[in-house]
Amino acid sequence: MLIYNIGMLAGILPEGVGRLRGADIGRLESLTDAWLLVRDGRIADFGTMDTCPSREGADDIDARRGIVLPAFCDCHTHLVYAGSREGEFRDKIAGMSYAEIAARGGGILNSARRLAEATEDDLYEESLRRLRQICASGTGVVEIKTGYGLTLDSELKMLRVIARLREAVPQMAIRATFLGAHAVGPDYTGRQEAYVDHVIDDMLPAVAAQGVADYVDVFCERGFFTAGQTSRILQAGRSHGLLPRLHADQLLRSGGTATGIAAGALSVDHLEAAGPDEIALLAASDTIGVGLPGASFFLSDPYAPLNDIIAAGGTVALASDYNPGTSPSGSMLFVWALGCIKMRLTPEAALNAATINGATALGLQADYGSVTRGKRASLNIFDAPSLAFIPYAYTTPTLVATVR
Amino acid sequence: MLIYNIGMLAGILPEGVGRLRGADIGRLESLTDAWLLVRDGRIADFGTMDTCPSREGADDIDARRGIVLPAFCDCHTHLVYAGSREGEFRDKIAGMSYAEIAARGGGILNSARRLAEATEDDLYEESLRRLRQICASGTGVVEIKTGYGLTLDSELKMLRVIARLREAVPQMAIRATFLGAHAVGPDYTGRQEAYVDHVIDDMLPAVAAQGVADYVDVFCERGFFTAGQTSRILQAGRSHGLLPRLHADQLLRSGGTATGIAAGALSVDHLEAAGPDEIALLAASDTIGVGLPGASFFLSDPYAPLNDIIAAGGTVALASDYNPGTSPSGSMLFVWALGCIKMRLTPEAALNAATINGATALGLQADYGSVTRGKRASLNIFDAPSLAFIPYAYTTPTLVATVR
Repeated sequence: MLIYNIGMLAGILPEGVGRLRGADIGRLESLTDAWLLVRDGRIADFGTMDTCPSREGADDIDARRGIVLPAFCDCHTHLVYAGSREGEFRDKIAGMSYAEIAARGGGILNSARRLAEATEDDLYEESLRRLRQICASGTGVVEIKTGYGLTLDSELKMLRVIARLREAVPQMAIRATFLGAHAVGPDYTGRQEAYVDHVIDDMLPAVAAQGVADYVDVFCERGFFTAGQTSRILQAGRSHGLLPRLHADQLLRSGGTATGIAAGALSVDHLEAAGPDEIALLAASDTIGVGLPGASFFLSDPYAPLNDIIAAGGTVALASDYNPGTSPSGSMLFVWALGCIKMRLTPEAALNAATINGATALGLQADYGSVTRGKRASLNIFDAPSLAFIPYAYTTPTLVATVR
Repeated sequence: MLIYNIGMLAGILPEGVGRLRGADIGRLESLTDAWLLVRDGRIADFGTMDTCPSREGADDIDARRGIVLPAFCDCHTHLVYAGSREGEFRDKIAGMSYAEIAARGGGILNSARRLAEATEDDLYEESLRRLRQICASGTGVVEIKTGYGLTLDSELKMLRVIARLREAVPQMAIRATFLGAHAVGPDYTGRQEAYVDHVIDDMLPAVAAQGVADYVDVFCERGFFTAGQTSRILQAGRSHGLLPRLHADQLLRSGGTATGIAAGALSVDHLEAAGPDEIALLAASDTIGVGLPGASFFLSDPYAPLNDIIAAGGTVALASDYNPGTSPSGSMLFVWALGCIKMRLTPEAALNAATINGATALGLQADYGSVTRGKRASLNIFDAPSLAFIPYAYTTPTLVATVR
């Protein structure tokens, strides 16, 4: 397949470049007046129109002077869940605090109850609908977490659903993260340490044996899991072959960033409360700091200080945090816009954060996240007068086609 | 045309109800399991499925258990403009202030220069594209302001374009507002009072003679036009048959709300800086307070205190402020979401603010803004599990069809 008449082909990287660290994130190499050839699902070659190969056939795409970019790589979602939570949205509008909503059976435990009650087929069907929607809105790579199970059976059910999604939508790359320690399971109320033991002794071996999960994650936050418990779980996960990633420093500085970096986490995610210590730690490590501006937007929380991490020399990514409680949007286009409008990243930096650095946070940088010969042809085609127009005109339907 | 199998038909109002004041804005009457009959473009009748008339023909619509609502009535836009301003978006990200951007030729004068350079046909074509986009995204009624002309010729050019849009898209109701006093025109730099005289003595008579404009508006704000100048312009507009509306209290408390109410304005718009005095004035008047949350979002400014105005007994509406500098989005769906997420209006109140009260702010409540026998069939059909889901899942494509 040949894509021709490309106005701007951007996000070009040489082979072997896996992350854009520090100020490098602001660089976006591009060609104007370009073509791109796809063979066997991979980018075979690209160039300027004066060297355009002859058309291939019926599936060629006239980009009509549009902008072609790598598809978004969303490295943090919870999109497998049962039922939306707009009831809690009403409660929040009415002025109830998170604690009050939780006391009424809301929050993560609300989703856990609904997920336990849902059939696996229903859970699969509604998750598939969400997955197809984010694919159509520009996402090519997505990470999906468990953590609305909180019992061994329900956690394994979530992972089976993720495995079925992988089969149903092979044109997307899907990575699975075991987040049994998202909250203390309903059977362990008041026995947090026992739940941690359960995660380590019972869940992790069963999860690893099932073979679907790629990563292990913990919600390291006051009221959830301590830095010490987090370390134990991450270490146990690693012993089962699951690389660590982490929810860290969302509500308060909780030691999460330090814990994650010490554990060699691929990423520490959220960082709304990160300060100079966390920024310095990230700058000195290969762990990627992932900002989730959709959650900040929905909760009216601070935005993670990604520009400060970049200025210090760290690596950052952007992801959606798609979930029914705190970020009911899986649109990486809107995340790109929030990265610019609210986090004040340049359009180029926010795009790189949402593509190559997101892919790197999932260890998928060899195949995704940039326009590079040999990588998967996972691309978006936009009709826009400039790159910056896309996040600037954030509700204009600029995305006109996707190639996966 | 018959719309049948409606899961929820909401926004029903009796004939003659033109505004929802104070706490009434939270009420949203609805039918479940309903039908609605359209004859000659108007709502002929509606009811529950047990009384459903026989199907009419090929243009009948199976709503598939979806939610049917009145189309949005966007009572404040600047959608006729030449060229986007994502260059200034970059400047803002880089940390430049509004004053610095203006000093480099940015801001309203940037749009005025581009508009003066654009041919009328080009201006019409790009405005038509925007109009069609907002129609597809749920807007049925829209107000469009001039104010990027700032010379008599260019202001009249904008109004001719609005007249052509009316002819091209008759399925939408379009109202035109003369905003010659949007900024001091480029030929009058440093001679603000002379420009006000020019607006009153030269522009207003020519605009009124042209016959396109319905309203007159002034940007009453420090650095733009004083309360005294605003009063003079509004009064002169009224003498030419143009009813007043007003940009007021966006950046600072500027006396705009009091000036507008004293002039009998249909609406005072923005109100980000409104305090107890403005709230009390609105509560005691029929002037509608219009919140423009898209501008607050894009500029990271405070949100107008609409709940306080409602609590005091005033009338509020929501609009997009669609413009290239401070609100580059015409999506009333996103405005509805911002009304809930950021202004903490209930989903019902924010919807009423974006429909019936928006129509009332334009004097179009007899024909638009609710499901009422005899009104225009200007409706949106959503696929969503509940009304609240629509603003909650703010990037999910819930809008599946429009009827105009």
